[in-house]
Amino acid sequence: MTPLTRRTLLARSASAALVARAGPAAAAAPPAGRETPGIYRYRIGTFELTALYDGIWYRPITDKFIRNAPFHEVEGALADAFMPADKLATPFTTLVVNTGNKLVLIDTGTGGQIASSAGVLRDNLVAAAIDPKAIDLIVISHFHPDHINGIKDKDNGLVFPNAEIAVPDAEWNFWMDDANLNAAPPELKLAFRNQRRIFADIAKNVTRFEPGTDVAPGIATLAAPGHTPGHAVFAIHSGDKSLLVLGDTAQHPAVFARHPDWQAAFDIDGDAAVATRKKLFDRAAADRMLVTGYHFPFPACGHLVKTASGYEHVPVEWQPTL
Amino acid sequence: MTPLTRRTLLARSASAALVARAGPAAAAAPPAGRETPGIYRYRIGTFELTALYDGIWYRPITDKFIRNAPFHEVEGALADAFMPADKLATPFTTLVVNTGNKLVLIDTGTGGQIASSAGVLRDNLVAAAIDPKAIDLIVISHFHPDHINGIKDKDNGLVFPNAEIAVPDAEWNFWMDDANLNAAPPELKLAFRNQRRIFADIAKNVTRFEPGTDVAPGIATLAAPGHTPGHAVFAIHSGDKSLLVLGDTAQHPAVFARHPDWQAAFDIDGDAAVATRKKLFDRAAADRMLVTGYHFPFPACGHLVKTASGYEHVPVEWQPTL
Repeated sequence: MTPLTRRTLLARSASAALVARAGPAAAAAPPAGRETPGIYRYRIGTFELTALYDGIWYRPITDKFIRNAPFHEVEGALADAFMPADKLATPFTTLVVNTGNKLVLIDTGTGGQIASSAGVLRDNLVAAAIDPKAIDLIVISHFHPDHINGIKDKDNGLVFPNAEIAVPDAEWNFWMDDANLNAAPPELKLAFRNQRRIFADIAKNVTRFEPGTDVAPGIATLAAPGHTPGHAVFAIHSGDKSLLVLGDTAQHPAVFARHPDWQAAFDIDGDAAVATRKKLFDRAAADRMLVTGYHFPFPACGHLVKTASGYEHVPVEWQPTL
Repeated sequence: MTPLTRRTLLARSASAALVARAGPAAAAAPPAGRETPGIYRYRIGTFELTALYDGIWYRPITDKFIRNAPFHEVEGALADAFMPADKLATPFTTLVVNTGNKLVLIDTGTGGQIASSAGVLRDNLVAAAIDPKAIDLIVISHFHPDHINGIKDKDNGLVFPNAEIAVPDAEWNFWMDDANLNAAPPELKLAFRNQRRIFADIAKNVTRFEPGTDVAPGIATLAAPGHTPGHAVFAIHSGDKSLLVLGDTAQHPAVFARHPDWQAAFDIDGDAAVATRKKLFDRAAADRMLVTGYHFPFPACGHLVKTASGYEHVPVEWQPTL
């Protein structure tokens, strides 16, 4: 066997390329020069789901990012996942559910307002032949900007003009309370102000749901507090099939499923976030539930396995046909 | 927090859906009814690569499938990977490399001749705007049918009519030897006969390469025997970037990277296959090389990490732009 070393791999071989013996080459094929759309379809019972990628943010982090773990352990987790040093890979995948009667969008992406490497949701909607005007209902897991900013474009125009918007009642109560805004540290005040930009002039179109109720037939809501006070997750069921939509119960599973005890700076209540994560992940692992997470690697759908120290995410196999 | 049990998840809530309060619904959006193309682009230096999915085969296996492991361990590996019981998930991903001068296809898919759930390569070429007539060179890792059948359609017509075909010299010598055909067990005779169907009338267009040489500028070949006698892998390099194309050094990593000692029934020389696998995987893990495997989960590109008992595959993060 040819010795394989970094040197033999990287050094261009001095041997003549065999194809140099071929006749005159036709014109070289031009490169495509662009990525293909990040879209993946699957079914839950009779429902047709479309995972739509909005892109990825490489979030710079410091030794303050995980409150309760030594930074070298965090750096080790990033390295094990082949993330850049000191940057958390944060992919964004929204979900459209066609129940047959309603076209429902769960969370709305960054609206191109978070990172230059995110904001492709609208291109992917076009590629998926989903008309934003056809979205009947937007369901929001929580009020962080990467989940709500896609409701509007940069000029505050509605991207999904015919959609009712359903939000968790406790989330609205927490973030829309000006006393909480005034008491917040400066960096969190930005989130409060962003929420007012998104919701102030459309509040009358916003429906608030109590977890435990359905937002549409076959789309149940469950309270999952900690990451934010009103953070909600969703259980989609059709026939005897189901999907648990985990929102931000954990961000990238290579970091937060493997280390379920880690409390990130963006968790409003770190203890509650960890308790919610373990409760939902234990149930999903025990029942081998199909799950999707907003910050799981595209197409963001798979299963969770319990390990000695945490959980592993097992992505679904890409199916060539629906 | 709402109690989450299988019962609460699966039972449709009796609560009225909030959206029932909305006004008369517009016409329901029709489902798309079809999967989106399995295509993913990335760059290695100045080369543009396109991973093209051909589909997936759920290969039925028995207790004879892994020669040197108890079947309950194999069944456990399948269950851990959420594969069906007694079926090995076998996805197929071909790779087109545009070097700027040559358009090179590495392995050719099943040609729709292996499983009804595979054979979408030609549809995906169309979706990727790659004209089969523009392929200059086909490079073959080895002669199993899922790698060579895509050279021809079911009527034995050439799918890539302008492509030179480069194959490993040792592979040609082994499989084209009628003495080996005659000595083969009945199920392996099928492979020998299939190779004659593919190659007999185009042998004059087939170039045979010695591992260690380049098949095109920037595409080096390396011997990787065991799975088949002439099995070859490829090192693609452009600028200071590289990609190791592992072919069938291991099939699905959830089974064969995690259990690198396992010898499958389809390995012609099981001991050599294991030795090759460990040598290449050790090097890829130590040097944190970007790798792709023909039977890795789509888009089939990522890294390998060495663990206490084997290796784990870490898929690349899907990038929204090239």
